[in-house]
Amino acid sequence: MTKVIKIGGAVVDDEVMLGNILDRCATLAEPFVLVHGGGKIATEIAHALGIKQTMINGRRVTDADTLRLVTMVYAGFINKNIVAKLHARGILNIGMTGADADLVRAHRRVHESVDYGFVGDIDHVNADVMATLLNAGISVVVAPLTHDGMGQLLNTNADTMAAMIAKAYQHADVQLVYLFEFPGVMRNLTDATSVIPVINVNDIDGLIEDGTISKGMVPKITNAADAARAGINVRIQHISALGTDEGTLITC
Amino acid sequence: MTKVIKIGGAVVDDEVMLGNILDRCATLAEPFVLVHGGGKIATEIAHALGIKQTMINGRRVTDADTLRLVTMVYAGFINKNIVAKLHARGILNIGMTGADADLVRAHRRVHESVDYGFVGDIDHVNADVMATLLNAGISVVVAPLTHDGMGQLLNTNADTMAAMIAKAYQHADVQLVYLFEFPGVMRNLTDATSVIPVINVNDIDGLIEDGTISKGMVPKITNAADAARAGINVRIQHISALGTDEGTLITC
Repeated sequence: MTKVIKIGGAVVDDEVMLGNILDRCATLAEPFVLVHGGGKIATEIAHALGIKQTMINGRRVTDADTLRLVTMVYAGFINKNIVAKLHARGILNIGMTGADADLVRAHRRVHESVDYGFVGDIDHVNADVMATLLNAGISVVVAPLTHDGMGQLLNTNADTMAAMIAKAYQHADVQLVYLFEFPGVMRNLTDATSVIPVINVNDIDGLIEDGTISKGMVPKITNAADAARAGINVRIQHISALGTDEGTLITC
Repeated sequence: MTKVIKIGGAVVDDEVMLGNILDRCATLAEPFVLVHGGGKIATEIAHALGIKQTMINGRRVTDADTLRLVTMVYAGFINKNIVAKLHARGILNIGMTGADADLVRAHRRVHESVDYGFVGDIDHVNADVMATLLNAGISVVVAPLTHDGMGQLLNTNADTMAAMIAKAYQHADVQLVYLFEFPGVMRNLTDATSVIPVINVNDIDGLIEDGTISKGMVPKITNAADAARAGINVRIQHISALGTDEGTLITC
């Protein structure tokens, strides 16, 4: 079973949490795909460089300066540090963006009223190149950037990239794992025993409507549901639970 | 014949020159390796971030802030933009540092009196992973960073990386090409007709002593000679001459 693992910005920002998850990745029996998000460091460097962050309806607009920033921070600093740290744990691995080896091709988002800038919506995942690498024993660390095939890099949601990569990879059984700082999808964020062990994709709309699933969990669960509907085994769990059956399983 | 091509910072900084060289790369019959240097953009961003550049004996010291900077700029911004631009020219390619797939392993430089910081001297090139990629039809774009296998990234000279990669790659005939803004090694920099068409490695010390070869050309020619002694076909030529027999051939 090939794992496509997503870790978010909060994990990337925390040396100890990141170390723990990379330790667990090193215990996996098979080469894996690790998709990482951004993190506060991008905001810090944006501030230091005087790059203003524009938000529209709670979403960040990727202007040319911001694209340059995230290309430096996601594809450079974060990605290469994870790659080096995994090698220190004996894991042969390669860092990639969606532009590398044409891994994830996208188009600039079209929206009737809002220009989100250089944001990419995914068109195609090159699963063959991923198979070439995984079959050669090389794990793949993916930064959340794509390209349009015409020379333009695009900022792309990491949760979506993980789901699309999992769906496209038909060369082996795939498990998609969203790792974060909570033990799973919870009925009550302050109660660790309130984890919902199994969620059927048909129940997700109701859980969003009644407020059980809210905020940052909404895009994660939407992507998870999308992958589950395509037949992928999807699990949302705590970073310390990778490789276990803990957390929330999304079924179809 | 597999080409290992080195382009310097002056090319990377100039959109038109960079576009021209990528156009020429796109005409090559076989997948290639393109090693790129840094460029002024790293200095500009260092300045914007308030990172002081320390020089000792004319060499830049790579402190922790500078390492973070070059990881962002070389492996992120420059590397991924070249990758996207090559795909726009129809060239399937992947961007890597020496840390990716353990491509180039190094150790932190040991010097009796000077601490150059996080600077790597190369120990090993993973030619097998390069063969896997090139044989799969994927050209490789290399940023001048290495790692020590223990989680530490290291800043590494791009001329040396190109030479070491060329020497290590025994899976096919290799040509090492240093491209720059001059037509070759010249007796007189202001006279385009003064290109030396062939230099034997045994004559290089004399050319350095009499001042014919000086400044930035010295490390380039030293690396070129090192590769030529190992049996590699080495050519130093103008960026517009890639694929031709123009410029200076280094023979052994």
